[in-house]
Amino acid sequence: MQETRLDTARIRAARRVIDPVFLDTPLYRCEALEAGLGCTVSIKLETANPVRSFKARGTEVVASLLADNGSRAAVCASAGNLGQALAWSGRGRGIDVTVVASRFATATKLDRIRALGARLELVHGDHEMARERAAAIAQYDGIRLVEDSLDIETCEGTATIGLELMDTEPSFDAVLIALGGGALATGVGHVVKAMAPEAEVICVQPLGAPAMAQSWRRRRVVTTDSTDTIADGVAGRHPVPDVLDDLLVVADDAVLVQEASIIAGMRMLLRHAGLVVEPSAALGVAAIIEDRDRFAGRHVVTIVCGSNVDVDAYHRWVGGAPKPGP
Amino acid sequence: MQETRLDTARIRAARRVIDPVFLDTPLYRCEALEAGLGCTVSIKLETANPVRSFKARGTEVVASLLADNGSRAAVCASAGNLGQALAWSGRGRGIDVTVVASRFATATKLDRIRALGARLELVHGDHEMARERAAAIAQYDGIRLVEDSLDIETCEGTATIGLELMDTEPSFDAVLIALGGGALATGVGHVVKAMAPEAEVICVQPLGAPAMAQSWRRRRVVTTDSTDTIADGVAGRHPVPDVLDDLLVVADDAVLVQEASIIAGMRMLLRHAGLVVEPSAALGVAAIIEDRDRFAGRHVVTIVCGSNVDVDAYHRWVGGAPKPGP
Repeated sequence: MQETRLDTARIRAARRVIDPVFLDTPLYRCEALEAGLGCTVSIKLETANPVRSFKARGTEVVASLLADNGSRAAVCASAGNLGQALAWSGRGRGIDVTVVASRFATATKLDRIRALGARLELVHGDHEMARERAAAIAQYDGIRLVEDSLDIETCEGTATIGLELMDTEPSFDAVLIALGGGALATGVGHVVKAMAPEAEVICVQPLGAPAMAQSWRRRRVVTTDSTDTIADGVAGRHPVPDVLDDLLVVADDAVLVQEASIIAGMRMLLRHAGLVVEPSAALGVAAIIEDRDRFAGRHVVTIVCGSNVDVDAYHRWVGGAPKPGP
Repeated sequence: MQETRLDTARIRAARRVIDPVFLDTPLYRCEALEAGLGCTVSIKLETANPVRSFKARGTEVVASLLADNGSRAAVCASAGNLGQALAWSGRGRGIDVTVVASRFATATKLDRIRALGARLELVHGDHEMARERAAAIAQYDGIRLVEDSLDIETCEGTATIGLELMDTEPSFDAVLIALGGGALATGVGHVVKAMAPEAEVICVQPLGAPAMAQSWRRRRVVTTDSTDTIADGVAGRHPVPDVLDDLLVVADDAVLVQEASIIAGMRMLLRHAGLVVEPSAALGVAAIIEDRDRFAGRHVVTIVCGSNVDVDAYHRWVGGAPKPGP
């Protein structure tokens, strides 16, 4: 394999600094999904942990290094999941965490960031504006800016998922990975291409937020002026060049899916797997729905990467859902 | 501790014959639930596996022994989860499985039993009638009758959950366990009382299906004429004397909860933990809701024991939910 910024030995070492509550997550075949999808489906479930997404694998590595270096503060921009994860990882290590988010971010994600003790600053714009503001805070306060997907720790921490996928029985033919900033795709992709190169690494992004997928296709950074998707966790507009370079090495494909397919995927995961997921976590199933022939009869792993969803919005998307509880 | 039928060394050995996909399930603190419940809450999640309940821990032990003995067939009565689990465990070992269930059982559970290749026979009555019919089939066909909770393998396989609870950080003050036939309660209870005797073992049953809890309270078998609860997985009427004897040793309490509390618990687990659960799996949260003072400020583990629920029924209970998906 051509080199990426990632290193398999460092990825193995990352397991030692990540709280075990985020490691060795469920990996299981879900036969009830298979009739509707026409292929063998295994789920890698990254939602059954204190922050309900995979992001803490990366922030645990970040925060561990910060603590080792005596750093006491960090700031990040987040659509909500990275912020929760950094807040969780920082809290346990005495690191003050500031999270900058769009005021249009998912409300429950913002509530959880506050509840975990982080300082939350909202910008009146999208995720790219939050990134600019976080960079400004880091410069002004002289604290560490945690940049998801650019910072190698976020990629290598996330890549520990890839190590765990090597236990899949029987071995898989393809892995479907939600594509946003690229930490998940380059992390998992690096390990898969290093350890099981015959397996296809397929990244999936919404048609309404296609910047990274289009960049991969054209082999150069493509930015977009806006995004239009319910998959808030992957709705970036400005791909990072270094991350794109890694993605060009490890990804076999980057596909774009429609919103209706994402919703159909969420519905199938509820009905046949009993899983409530956020839209980004249904991208893999959406990709199968849109191209059944491609996957027919093959063994596909899909990473269910997060479940932080507003119950009321979930209701609107999947068609009926719970009223406010106690 | 006074003796039970269970043996801790055999429970440890059971881990070696249970497919790893059912072991080492997520165990994590769920802070988002804590504000509403007034105590520290950890979740032990038994739903992220191929049969979506804890039952396969027991059936893996049963089927492994059957295969070792050259047995080629087995029959059980089931409300739906045991049948799925035995079907799964038998299929991989060349054992023909027959499941007897009430025709009023949860439809998705029955569908999954069939899909897993088991022969399904429905009786026009409740779970106790299914038990009688299963016993008759076993006698007539000369095959093994698997009796949940009575058969020691079902208890000791399930008890492996207890071993995993010993990893809870920080240590817990009480564990809340759904009480039906008693395999889960006596299994987990045995290990907790053997290894962490200071922790309270609290069994929870619906007021509408109180036979085992009342038996525990009166220290003798109490049967009921009918059941009236949405918690189909725990709706027995005839407790097994040997299982009651074990429960009397390991349980510190057996509480009864109202249907409204079970529904409130399901709603909280959806809204604050992102988990779709079947009613039996919400009994622990229901017990906290009904007696907040008892648990205030303590660290409570609740075992989320199954997620096999009809989505439409779930909708009716928790108040709005998804329409049929693709």
